[in-house]
Amino acid sequence: MMKLPLAFERYRTDIDAELRTVLAERDSPMYDMLRYHLGWIDEKGNAVQGAAGKAMRPILCLLVHETVAGDYRKALPAAAAIELVHNFSLIHDDIQDDDRERHHRPTVWSIWGKPQAINAGTAMRVMASLAMLRLAGHGAPAEKLLQAQRLLDESCLRLIEGQYLDISFESRLDVRVDDYLAMIERKTASLIACSTEMGALLGSEDQKIRHAFREYGRNLGLAFQIRDDLLGIWGDPVRTGKPVGSDIRRKKKSFPVVYGLEYTKREANAALKDIYCAEVIDDQGLSTALDVLHDVRAEAYTQQMVEQYRDLALAQLANINLSPWSRQNLEETADFVAGREY
Amino acid sequence: MMKLPLAFERYRTDIDAELRTVLAERDSPMYDMLRYHLGWIDEKGNAVQGAAGKAMRPILCLLVHETVAGDYRKALPAAAAIELVHNFSLIHDDIQDDDRERHHRPTVWSIWGKPQAINAGTAMRVMASLAMLRLAGHGAPAEKLLQAQRLLDESCLRLIEGQYLDISFESRLDVRVDDYLAMIERKTASLIACSTEMGALLGSEDQKIRHAFREYGRNLGLAFQIRDDLLGIWGDPVRTGKPVGSDIRRKKKSFPVVYGLEYTKREANAALKDIYCAEVIDDQGLSTALDVLHDVRAEAYTQQMVEQYRDLALAQLANINLSPWSRQNLEETADFVAGREY
Repeated sequence: MMKLPLAFERYRTDIDAELRTVLAERDSPMYDMLRYHLGWIDEKGNAVQGAAGKAMRPILCLLVHETVAGDYRKALPAAAAIELVHNFSLIHDDIQDDDRERHHRPTVWSIWGKPQAINAGTAMRVMASLAMLRLAGHGAPAEKLLQAQRLLDESCLRLIEGQYLDISFESRLDVRVDDYLAMIERKTASLIACSTEMGALLGSEDQKIRHAFREYGRNLGLAFQIRDDLLGIWGDPVRTGKPVGSDIRRKKKSFPVVYGLEYTKREANAALKDIYCAEVIDDQGLSTALDVLHDVRAEAYTQQMVEQYRDLALAQLANINLSPWSRQNLEETADFVAGREY
Repeated sequence: MMKLPLAFERYRTDIDAELRTVLAERDSPMYDMLRYHLGWIDEKGNAVQGAAGKAMRPILCLLVHETVAGDYRKALPAAAAIELVHNFSLIHDDIQDDDRERHHRPTVWSIWGKPQAINAGTAMRVMASLAMLRLAGHGAPAEKLLQAQRLLDESCLRLIEGQYLDISFESRLDVRVDDYLAMIERKTASLIACSTEMGALLGSEDQKIRHAFREYGRNLGLAFQIRDDLLGIWGDPVRTGKPVGSDIRRKKKSFPVVYGLEYTKREANAALKDIYCAEVIDDQGLSTALDVLHDVRAEAYTQQMVEQYRDLALAQLANINLSPWSRQNLEETADFVAGREY
């Protein structure tokens, strides 16, 4: 079982405090949807604990910032902003995918309805921009702040482009591995690359360091999403919070399926296409699809891809002068991403 | 018939060029949804003309900027950003209200589906932030740019809060005129106040001027929305692009209805409430509701409210030293808003 890297605990309190400061004094009941989604309150408004996510993106931002600049706190506004962009995308993603549950909790739309959940998601995205403005109070020069804003907004646009592609793939059977990679590069890798690049940008003028951390994050993001796809089919439902084979039932063109559609032959390929052409994928269809993927060893190949991108991420670290502490955490993060069970 | 103020033609070419620059070189097919919504292309991607909106918000921003600073062009990035925020809200509003048509054209979601239209709206909102960054290239000092960004983002949050309230009012019968005014202050007036304040902020250090133009815009925004509500019930369907009594059928708590619910007595009040409690408002219900509103002279009272806010807007102009040209355009704009037929 993969353990969380040390850094994942180190920054959590400060990230949480920064997020709460950004949302403080927002008293329209609308913001309760945001606080609910962030795991701070239940649907009745009572405080709850332990419902928050992993906060991997802001942690990566702070870890890289501490690595290049020593003190991580100056990057806290940007780390919080990135976490808010991530959560905006989750709220809208749940609406778009019709998902009623995330992390064993009802999704925002399943409680407040889709029209209000659309508002919650967009408000979260605007809060991210306001969170960024707090960088000015942490002594960031104006020119740096503008660069950081542009990085966040461009990354967010790429994320939305990826979401657009992901949805458009649902009605297509001709999605190839290359199309898939171009999609997850936008949907997932762009915000994770933004996180690591942001940490470097705010702490260093060195373009090479910025580039290396961007590429570390980008490859980590690709590994993260492909591992996510693996868990979406073969993960433990208790740990992932998703039913067995859920991505297949939802006709998601996730990596194992795209691989299966591209690399199976004749009967197996025809069977897989038939299943994905049906209106609904029933138990029989799910079972057949799992058999086909088993026969082409899709799970092993998928994990091989995960580890390939993890190794590309790790290779970037060779280009940077790192303290033992930083190296250990950056390596552990890559190992965690590639081996995580949830 | 109200004629458009002169200024409405004066800035259009530049606003359009600025918007097209912001969207240039975005080649994902996702952006075609944005270009379609902005009236530049049809759903197949062919260029079209004459499908654009009134662009009242960016025009107000530039008119105020020219008034306080002489050259309007430095405010173009902010004017474009405001228009993009407005259009983001329209795309999402059409999804939330289930509206298949706007300005006699199919809405984005009715062509591409709701999941993709959510992406289009949010992408439009992010493009607004990127549009703002172009202010730096127009010589805006960093401090000013930060203030302008904060103004836009806070106004956008208020707009979303207003949208949240508007939707929450649909299932309530106890909405009073004060609740209604608090809602449209956010949903509509906040972005129009942002437009006029933005023009002043970018061109002047004088807090009084900034405040007066903000209040001019805020009252204009209230007048605009109440006039919109009047047209949503009694407007000419050909000119508004909405069927007769459409806001009643959709159970919108628009001003005349809120007024009717609050100020009718006994039988009339009970009849109105019955109609709004029914699952669907049929022809008979619509006809009865129109009769009740007619009996309490709701249309005349609504127009009186429109003119009250128009006059409050005009009164703000007394506090500012204006050229005859500026005065004429600011007055004509207020008159247009209060008397417009579409």
